Amino acid sequence: MADSELPTRPKPEETKEAAPAPAEAGDSKNASKNALKKAAKEKAKAEKAAARAAQEKAQAAAAEANDTAKGLYGPIPETEDVIPTTRFSELSEEYYEKEVTVIARVDNARVQSAKLAFLMLRQQGQKVQAVIAAAEPISRQMIKFTGGLNVNSIVQVTGIVKKPEIPISSASISHLELHIRKVYMISEAAQMLPMQVKDAERPPPTEAEEGQSQVDAEGAPIVTLKTRLDNRVLDLQTETSQAITWISSGVAQLFSEYMIKSGSRWIFTPKLVGAATEGGSNVFEVKYFKRNAYLAQSPQLYKQMCIAGDMENVFEIAPVFRAEDSNTHRHLTEFAGLDFEKTFQSHYHEVLDFAEDLLVFILTQLKERYASQIAIIQKSYPRAGDFKLPKDGKALRLNYMDGVALLKEAGVDMSEQERFENDFTTAMEKQLGQIIRDKYDTDFYVLDKFPMAVRPFYTKADPKDSRFSNSYDFFMRGEEIMSGAQRINDIKELEASMRAKGMDPTQEGFEDYMNAFRQGCPPHAGGGLGMNRIVMFFLGLPNVRLASLFPRDPQRLRP
Amino acid sequence: MADSELPTRPKPEETKEAAPAPAEAGDSKNASKNALKKAAKEKAKAEKAAARAAQEKAQAAAAEANDTAKGLYGPIPETEDVIPTTRFSELSEEYYEKEVTVIARVDNARVQSAKLAFLMLRQQGQKVQAVIAAAEPISRQMIKFTGGLNVNSIVQVTGIVKKPEIPISSASISHLELHIRKVYMISEAAQMLPMQVKDAERPPPTEAEEGQSQVDAEGAPIVTLKTRLDNRVLDLQTETSQAITWISSGVAQLFSEYMIKSGSRWIFTPKLVGAATEGGSNVFEVKYFKRNAYLAQSPQLYKQMCIAGDMENVFEIAPVFRAEDSNTHRHLTEFAGLDFEKTFQSHYHEVLDFAEDLLVFILTQLKERYASQIAIIQKSYPRAGDFKLPKDGKALRLNYMDGVALLKEAGVDMSEQERFENDFTTAMEKQLGQIIRDKYDTDFYVLDKFPMAVRPFYTKADPKDSRFSNSYDFFMRGEEIMSGAQRINDIKELEASMRAKGMDPTQEGFEDYMNAFRQGCPPHAGGGLGMNRIVMFFLGLPNVRLASLFPRDPQRLRP
Repeated sequence: MADSELPTRPKPEETKEAAPAPAEAGDSKNASKNALKKAAKEKAKAEKAAARAAQEKAQAAAAEANDTAKGLYGPIPETEDVIPTTRFSELSEEYYEKEVTVIARVDNARVQSAKLAFLMLRQQGQKVQAVIAAAEPISRQMIKFTGGLNVNSIVQVTGIVKKPEIPISSASISHLELHIRKVYMISEAAQMLPMQVKDAERPPPTEAEEGQSQVDAEGAPIVTLKTRLDNRVLDLQTETSQAITWISSGVAQLFSEYMIKSGSRWIFTPKLVGAATEGGSNVFEVKYFKRNAYLAQSPQLYKQMCIAGDMENVFEIAPVFRAEDSNTHRHLTEFAGLDFEKTFQSHYHEVLDFAEDLLVFILTQLKERYASQIAIIQKSYPRAGDFKLPKDGKALRLNYMDGVALLKEAGVDMSEQERFENDFTTAMEKQLGQIIRDKYDTDFYVLDKFPMAVRPFYTKADPKDSRFSNSYDFFMRGEEIMSGAQRINDIKELEASMRAKGMDPTQEGFEDYMNAFRQGCPPHAGGGLGMNRIVMFFLGLPNVRLASLFPRDPQRLRP
Repeated sequence: MADSELPTRPKPEETKEAAPAPAEAGDSKNASKNALKKAAKEKAKAEKAAARAAQEKAQAAAAEANDTAKGLYGPIPETEDVIPTTRFSELSEEYYEKEVTVIARVDNARVQSAKLAFLMLRQQGQKVQAVIAAAEPISRQMIKFTGGLNVNSIVQVTGIVKKPEIPISSASISHLELHIRKVYMISEAAQMLPMQVKDAERPPPTEAEEGQSQVDAEGAPIVTLKTRLDNRVLDLQTETSQAITWISSGVAQLFSEYMIKSGSRWIFTPKLVGAATEGGSNVFEVKYFKRNAYLAQSPQLYKQMCIAGDMENVFEIAPVFRAEDSNTHRHLTEFAGLDFEKTFQSHYHEVLDFAEDLLVFILTQLKERYASQIAIIQKSYPRAGDFKLPKDGKALRLNYMDGVALLKEAGVDMSEQERFENDFTTAMEKQLGQIIRDKYDTDFYVLDKFPMAVRPFYTKADPKDSRFSNSYDFFMRGEEIMSGAQRINDIKELEASMRAKGMDPTQEGFEDYMNAFRQGCPPHAGGGLGMNRIVMFFLGLPNVRLASLFPRDPQRLRP
């Protein structure tokens, strides 16, 4: 269609959106302001109701009154033809003056006058403005229909891409707008939604801020993390959530890519297990027909049994269940575990090298492949800054005792006993993360050789100094994302280690695991990564729940 | 090392292994034969005990008696150097006369004389014969040590690759053998194992055969499926199990490859859910702190919520839990689910085409990438024959009613009522599979347009005939491996569908799901594949438990 068919463009100020009214008055200071806003809101509501009533009549009237726009708007016509559509992400200046069809949500709809209405369209968080003005064949009825669309409805819009006189600052794609020729309803949203997607575009308040006010400095409603998670389907529609879910997908993809390239076999070990072998108190109990089962807290024993079964190099991507009553920013009761286990020939550092390269691969490739998503997320969560990787492409590896020494230099001294019997506290870990960032300019590093006392029974002791173990933790921004070790592969050594930890090697539920070593098992090591934590710390998110699609914690089992 | 240093080769008949003695006498007919075997077995046992005693002394003696082989055998020397090793799969005629080092299990060890012993070595199921003969520097002590090694122990062997005079029929790599120069113990197996890996190389008896005899026609012990699964770590070491676990890994890999290439996002939805929304009786109950939770029977509702959250194209690879008390060859209580969900524009066949191409991709690529593994498995399970794929690379799609007609032609008639209210029985499905194989020469096909009455509440009815639905099943060899459909995306239609199925749309646990549609949701369709069933039917395995690493059924929670 030629440009001449289009109506005169509205002046830029006309297209500027009004600030949204808060859901409720915040404090007395804002009361009168809010009263005004409330009145305005009610007016808008009334207008919308009127628009709706008009819209309902519009189509019936169309046939009778010879609506010139008949067939150009309304419910989407039934067809089995696939109409070529354009993604917002494809749109560029090359599209100026071309006709495109898009499928998008209504982020906002506004009737400016009987002859003019605006839509803000949203596609996976990205926004483009669309405008409709009366000019043959577009009728007033069609304008009313368009301006009265319920927010969040999904529509199919055909229009001409135009260059706006000045960039549209409220749209994420600000250098173009759509002049509407057709608009069809695909899926209508209810008039009232529990929250607005645009209000969830801003980061949730911190715990300290929460409850202080219900509106922010600009008078926009503050949406708490709880409200966002309660309405996660709406929350997922924000540009930030879309980007975070891409990063999660990317971590899993990169992990599997690296493992498969290394010749590793993808395994699926049972989550329903017969005994609470990894610590009874933190395990979920399941009714299993006429007896009890438990949810696996990790695939640890099973991936080792795969190694004993000659599989040599295995990995798993599966949920991990923890019945810990921990209500913190970084604990979930169910999370995605990325596990691997691998034989080695002479020294467990063969596997540690492999695991370090795995993490460097994942983190480097995330930056390369998801640069645009990272940029979007940083707009909302800028505090942590860019994630720093080691410059030489090799992970920084220190020993646990090097960490102890670095902390001591900074004034945090552990007693001789504490060094060998305790692990670092979370606060110490964070401080160490800062010290290492300052000294080595990296947010990713590895600590090796943890004290034997703080590791599980299957961990191999350091043959040179039995106070320590052949075990390692991986850290991102001073918080642990992986724990791993060489495992004991000799049955006598394993039995002795269990006894030393006060466990009974003959206890029920361990038979199959113990037998795996009685028939011969090669030396091996491995590790388990928390996917959600990798996403959280890589992006510097304040809460791990933001890095889980539908998070589970002791308080939350829904949505 | 030069060939001249090697001892004279034993005659071929000397190297032939004795048939293993049965664990116990089977029936009276074989009694005398078995008595002889028992005696032979006890003699072998006594010889082994003697060899062991000798072995124990061997090393102590070595130092004193100036053992010429000192340092060439015994426990593996400690070193952090990685000695280059060769994989059995790499070995070829190009290695003749070359020295190699291998790490492998002892599949069998036998002292032939004071000057000669044989090892059968096994690496991930592949077997290579090794021989050791007295000749400087190899001592009698070293020969005793080697021939007395416990079966299944893991050893590091260095030797010269030689061409045997005649192929070694008991080895899978029959055209070469290893003349031992060094042999070190890496991990020693116990003297008595609950079963021998070589006895698990043969397929388990069918249910009809089970209990008939404890030895087969050749007098070898019959290992039942139960024994194999009870000792799964040993069972995994067979060449067949190794190949099957590679196929499982391949199915998951190919699924994710196809999905990622299509722009799909990898999702992780919760397995702990607050309500038994998909049928209360078949769901496992979990103690969740002070209340109850349930294990998700599928990610159905959650992947739809991701679509409602604008994710457009998602996939998941995760365990699926079914509390069905079904004790059949194809039911598990926990299996690996491959799920996807996708928006479409005009017709659900856009998604069905996508899903068909997905399966054709997986099945075609399995044949291409895993030809050697498939060949190994077919040696044990030849009955089903090669899996037939459609010749033109496109899936065969029939309607449910076409299936009804094909069955009718074959004499299986369903009443008018049955056609619309029932699904095919398992027997009918199998028969239909045979009819389709005969007629269309394919083992993979799709049935579309199932009766609405047999599909779940969220299934979209066929707009042209509401007795049917926009739903499909995928079949391999006449058994279902996937179920899928267009889903209802309109809240009013969904509520009506629930009511029509006798469900209450306002019931607890459904709020979040229902709200996902109240805020607008694009048209979408998807499906859920059972990974273990794909492996089972592709390979023609008699039992799905053979296609699960550690299977779970109502009777089995271990290993």
